[in-house]
Parts: sequence; structure tokens; C-alpha cells
Amino acid sequence: MWVCGTVWRVRTPARQWRRLLPASGCHGPAASSYSASAETARVRALVYGHHGDPAKVVEGITRQWFQRFPWIFLQRVTAAVSSASTVGSKDVLRGVNFELGLEGLKNLDRAAVGGSDVRVKMLAAPINPSDINMIQGNYGLLPELPAVGGNEGVAQVVAVGSNVTRLKPGDWVIPANAGLGTWRTEAVFSEDALIQVPSDIPLQSAATLGVNPCTAYRMLMDFEQLQPGDSVIQNASNSGVGQAVIQIAAALGLRTINVVRDRPDIQKLSDRLKSLGAEHVITEEELRRPEMKNFFKDMPQPRLALNCVGGKSSTELLRQLARGGTMVTYGGMAKQPVIASVSLLIFKDLKLRGFWLSQWKKDHSPDQFKELILTLCDLIRRGQLTAPACSQVPLQDYQSALEASMKPFVSSKQILTM
Amino acid sequence: MWVCGTVWRVRTPARQWRRLLPASGCHGPAASSYSASAETARVRALVYGHHGDPAKVVEGITRQWFQRFPWIFLQRVTAAVSSASTVGSKDVLRGVNFELGLEGLKNLDRAAVGGSDVRVKMLAAPINPSDINMIQGNYGLLPELPAVGGNEGVAQVVAVGSNVTRLKPGDWVIPANAGLGTWRTEAVFSEDALIQVPSDIPLQSAATLGVNPCTAYRMLMDFEQLQPGDSVIQNASNSGVGQAVIQIAAALGLRTINVVRDRPDIQKLSDRLKSLGAEHVITEEELRRPEMKNFFKDMPQPRLALNCVGGKSSTELLRQLARGGTMVTYGGMAKQPVIASVSLLIFKDLKLRGFWLSQWKKDHSPDQFKELILTLCDLIRRGQLTAPACSQVPLQDYQSALEASMKPFVSSKQILTM
Repeated sequence: MWVCGTVWRVRTPARQWRRLLPASGCHGPAASSYSASAETARVRALVYGHHGDPAKVVEGITRQWFQRFPWIFLQRVTAAVSSASTVGSKDVLRGVNFELGLEGLKNLDRAAVGGSDVRVKMLAAPINPSDINMIQGNYGLLPELPAVGGNEGVAQVVAVGSNVTRLKPGDWVIPANAGLGTWRTEAVFSEDALIQVPSDIPLQSAATLGVNPCTAYRMLMDFEQLQPGDSVIQNASNSGVGQAVIQIAAALGLRTINVVRDRPDIQKLSDRLKSLGAEHVITEEELRRPEMKNFFKDMPQPRLALNCVGGKSSTELLRQLARGGTMVTYGGMAKQPVIASVSLLIFKDLKLRGFWLSQWKKDHSPDQFKELILTLCDLIRRGQLTAPACSQVPLQDYQSALEASMKPFVSSKQILTM
Repeated sequence: MWVCGTVWRVRTPARQWRRLLPASGCHGPAASSYSASAETARVRALVYGHHGDPAKVVEGITRQWFQRFPWIFLQRVTAAVSSASTVGSKDVLRGVNFELGLEGLKNLDRAAVGGSDVRVKMLAAPINPSDINMIQGNYGLLPELPAVGGNEGVAQVVAVGSNVTRLKPGDWVIPANAGLGTWRTEAVFSEDALIQVPSDIPLQSAATLGVNPCTAYRMLMDFEQLQPGDSVIQNASNSGVGQAVIQIAAALGLRTINVVRDRPDIQKLSDRLKSLGAEHVITEEELRRPEMKNFFKDMPQPRLALNCVGGKSSTELLRQLARGGTMVTYGGMAKQPVIASVSLLIFKDLKLRGFWLSQWKKDHSPDQFKELILTLCDLIRRGQLTAPACSQVPLQDYQSALEASMKPFVSSKQILTM
């Protein structure tokens, strides 16, 4: 069900905020002279006005609704301004920005991208666990609300401003950083906010390239100096990152021990992960058994553990690590902290670290990120890295996609198509 | 009360094991021709035959008891051999080694140190938490039992073998590694097992130099590149390591936040730690209060946390760390694991490490350890590093010293004097 949208703005530099509004639409009295074309009238986006259960707080908006029911929009502005006195000056400012935004919409006409603007048409955007966490408010980077959901995806350049030098219409691009809001049909971004990707890779690979495979690759490369034949252990092995870890590790000659939750179709899952290059697939329960000691008669103890779960699962990963090994935490699906025995820290010299791709990007240059993307594209072209098992879902069916993405044991990543 | 000893041997190279027996004594029929002097007859040691409560398992032994009551010794050998059939071949081997040991005692006469042997008279040896843990069986390095207690202390060289080049009678020495067993009056060690220390530093400083100040110094130097003005937070600040951290940090221009357990004489303790160079002394309870946020208006958030407690205390230390900071765990006094929030690991990039001086020594050359010792001796001579508050206790009063070392809120380190 498409309902009327509201204003949104993410915490990006001020000069960019207008571009995060729908490509056109939402215009009130100040923009009354603006006449949208039939094409721009189709601009749609998934937005949320406050944090909470994604199935409840995410709304689909279209520009048409504002045209048809301007009173709803006016009602919202009035409500926002009247509540400003009780909630502080920030909301007053938001109200002002809102009005400025309406003025700014004139510049967002497709024919009128200027300067370093790049107008894109989104092609596909996945629903990642971090997107869900961001909507729930449990993430290290939270957009100012209301915001467009989604942090990853692939888009095609439609038009570029006169100062744009690196991109041209037809190019495929992905977001350079989290927070752009990819669950929409069209947008205008700054050239700097986008990274070109080759268009000769599968659409699903391009749509899921910028977060999970990047996270997997950096975690395999940046914490331990692993050599071919070394082993790596991970939990949540069926996640997007987990599947990328299996494939990239196999490409690097690393041996993987992949922990998954037990489930009815465990053999099917095990077979699928092994077909990707997993050497071992074991359940959380098997990991806790004393027989695990025999496991390392035939393979070296892992020097690297990748933890997306926390709680007991991470404690078990730590136990399996070789002396001096590192456990990198990149997620907390169990919503429990990491618990590390003092003796393992002291006497086995285990190291506990965390990884967050957004921080890695801040600490590295855009060129280094581009280099990473190209490295991964090479793996994709060589058939060594495929997209995770995906279900393509039209944008308007976002509610079922959101629900599916949060169900346990769903082995298929939901990808919204526009 | 001095009771009859038993045989003991620590896990050191086979060629050394005899030297860990008392300098003389324990001789049965095979050594009947050996006649001990009145001086060697005074050799005493604190030994333990199995792991457990130190107050119960540690026994003081003297050589005289074996001379006076050889039947007790014979009784023990007979019992050990007869039980071998039920407990396995290791104990049979131990029985054989025992007898070989008796033969070997002839070489341990004071006048007869040979090769690279160094005979020393122990001067003073502390009771450290790690000694207690080792006796309890909760330590990363456990001696083969029975063993002489104690891992640290200062001794004076009495005689040296013909191949000894670095040491001469009169020199002060400390153990190069843990496991030598320092709670005894005399011993013969290999030259390699000893490190010379200057004899112009206070006896208590020399006796407590080899473990705690080394641990403190390495933790301050090896995990974060701290600059003068940076801050460090630690718990167990009144421990031997804690006091060394305060003083070495002050000498390096670092600002310390020192967490201690609340206690009746907290002001007195606070004053004493501040007199050592502590900038702030706060209780565990104060650390948990929301007001801690204001704490870092006047000083930088710490980039290094030193954790000797574990459990909740370590969780609180982690909360105070600056982005990218490191918590180093070197003890677990609370006997609880370290609990780290997933979001702090991922979004604040906190690092959890462990430190164990024994491992550091394995990973570094003896010359690097000597260099560390000399650096600390320089600090001692400049008045920047003093021994922790100590109570000197004669060796024969070991039971009260052991009990005192395990009492909570005892601000005085027990040092056994020989």
C-alpha cells in the first residue's frame, strides 16, 4: 500500500540534503509553478519517520500522492511546526529546511542536473541486516529522520551535470558510502557519492557488491597475515558476508570452517555452501561438542574467526582459535555481547577486534575503495564470487520482502528491483 | 610448622631438574656417603604436592627432617611406586627420576658447582597473585608436581661453575623466567636461568622487579602509541602491577585514572596512590555513575585500559575508552570473563588484547629482557619507581604470609625473607 510520504533528510553534508528528497514531487505552494512530467511522477521511495520494527515503520511513498492529496502534506507540515515548540529548535529548523527543500525541487528536474549532480535510476537494492538495524535504530550510523531506507544497490546513470568528469549516462554506479537511501526508483546524488562499477557483471552481483563482499575481503586481509592452507572459522556462514567469505577464502587458498544454526534443511544448506567452496559446514551444536578437538588433527587451527552472532556462538569460536589468533566481530545477530575468557586472552594471546566497513572507508581514500571494488569484480568475472542466493522482489512488494528478510533460516537475500 | 618434604620437579629441561631439588638433603641409601655440612643443613623450601588452597597445600620442608626421619621419605617412595600401577607409567618414571635425583645430589654440594651452574642464596621473594594462581592450578604455566612455590625474587650469587662468564659471587640476580621456585633459602640454577640486577637498588625493589613493573611497562609501551598527556585507565590499581603502572605512567607523562574497590580506608588509599603519581583514584561504583561523562571534559578519553579484574569492571573500562582504544587484560581477579558489547567492538573499533609476561619473554631475546630490567632500574634510581607497599615476613612464617596475600583489601605485598 502506498501512503503519503513525508520530508526526509540524512546526516550528510548540508549541500547534499536536497538531493535526498525524491527526484521531484512533494511540492506545496512555493513550488506550485512546477509541473512534473508523467515520467517523474512515477518516482517512489521507501521511507521511515521513526525507528522501530521495519515492517511497521517503513512506508512506500509516491509523488502522485502529494499531487492528489496536497492537504495531507500540508497537514504534516503544520503538525511539524506546531509541535516544534514542545520538541525544541531542531524541529523548527527541520521545518525551515523543509520549505527550502521545496524551493530546491526546481533544480531536481531531470533535464536540469547541474554542477557535479548525477541523476540515477536505481536498478536493484538489497535488504541487508545493517539496513534493518539502521531502521530499528541499532546501528553506528543513523540518518536524520525521516529517511529513505537502504544503503546498498546498483543504479544506472541517466544524466550528469556539467562538472561531472568520471561518469556518463549508461554507467553503472553503487553508493560510495552508507546513508544514501537506495530503496527508491530515482535520485540525484553528488558525483562523489557514487562509485562506478563495470556493467559486465551480473545485476545481482553489482547490487550486492558494495557491502558484504567488501566486508568479507577486508576481514580476510586486514587482521591476520594468512597464507594459503591456513584456516578461517566463521559463524552466520549463510549470511551475505558469510557466503562471500567462503568464496573469497577459497579463491585465496584458505580453508574454511563454517558454522550455521541447525535447521530442517541443514544438508541442503551444507551442500550449497560446500558448492561455493566451504571445506566444512558444522552446526552451532556440533561446535560445542568435545569431538571438535579431533577436528584439528587434519587441518590447522584457525588464526582468524569471523563473528556475526555474539553470545555463546562467539565464545565457541574463540575456543577454536590458534594461539595468537584474532576474532573479528562484524555483527551481533544474537543481540548478546561477546564473552571472552580471561585465560584465553592472557595465555593464548587471543585478540578481539571489530570491523565496520563505513569506518574502513573513512580511514581509506576513495581510490582504495575503488581498487577493492575492482578486485572483487575480477573475482566475479573469474567465477570465484557470485551473488548470494537472492529473491528479486518488486519495490512495491517491499512489505513482504522486509518480513522475509527478518525471518530466521531464510537462505535467500531479498533484492528490491525498481 | 615444618613438615617433611617430598620430591619435586618443575617442567624445565631435563638437565636442570636436579638443581630444583634442595641444595642438599633428601638423600636415602644411595647417597649415604654424602655428609652435609651444618650450613647446607639449613636449606629450606616451600613446596606443594598438588594444586589447591595455598594455605593448605604448601608445606615448608627442611633437609634435616629427611636426615632425622628417613623412614618418612622411604614411606613416600614406597607409596609412590606402589600406586604407580593404578595411576600410570608417568608416576613410575617420577619414582625413577626421584632415585636419580638422589644420586645427583652429590653434585649440588656448595663447593662443587660445575659447568654453568650458579649457586645462589635467596634474599627475598614476594608472594604474587600469579604464584597463588599457579598453586591453585589456574595459570597458563603449571610446574610438574611437587614443586617449589614462587616465581620472583632476588638472590645473591654464592658460587659459580667454571663455565660461568656473566656472574660472580656477590652479584644480585633474579629469575629469567617463571617456574624456578623462589620460595627457598638456597638453590643451584643454570646461568641462563638468571638475570643480573644492580645491587645498588633497594632489596624490595629488586625482589619485586621481575614481574609486576615489567608487566606494567610493557603494557604501557606495546599496545598503543601513547604520547605525554594521553590518559590510561586501569582497575586493581592498588595491585603490584597497578602501583607500577601509576609510577611508570607518571614518569612517561601519562595521566592515569585508577579504579579501586571501595573500602573503609579509601581516602588513605587514594592519598597513597596519588602520592605515587595517580591523577585520579575512583571506586568501581563511581565508575558506573552517569557523571563519568563529565570526567572527560578536562582530560582526554583513555586510549589504553589495563584490566586485572574481568567481569563488570572490565565492561566499565571498555565504556570509557576512546574510539579505537585498546583494553589489555592481564588478570582475572573477579574470576569472571570479559564481556564486550558488540557495538563497541564494531562502531568504536575497540580492541581487546591480553598480556602475559612469560609469553613476552618467549617472544623476545634475553638481551631485550635485560634491557627492560635496566630501564626500570634507571627509574628506580631516579626515584620514579618504588617497590609496592610491602610487609617483609620470615620464610618460616609463610602460612600467615600466604593467608595475608589472599585477603581482600590488603594493601601490602607479602615478601618472604630468607
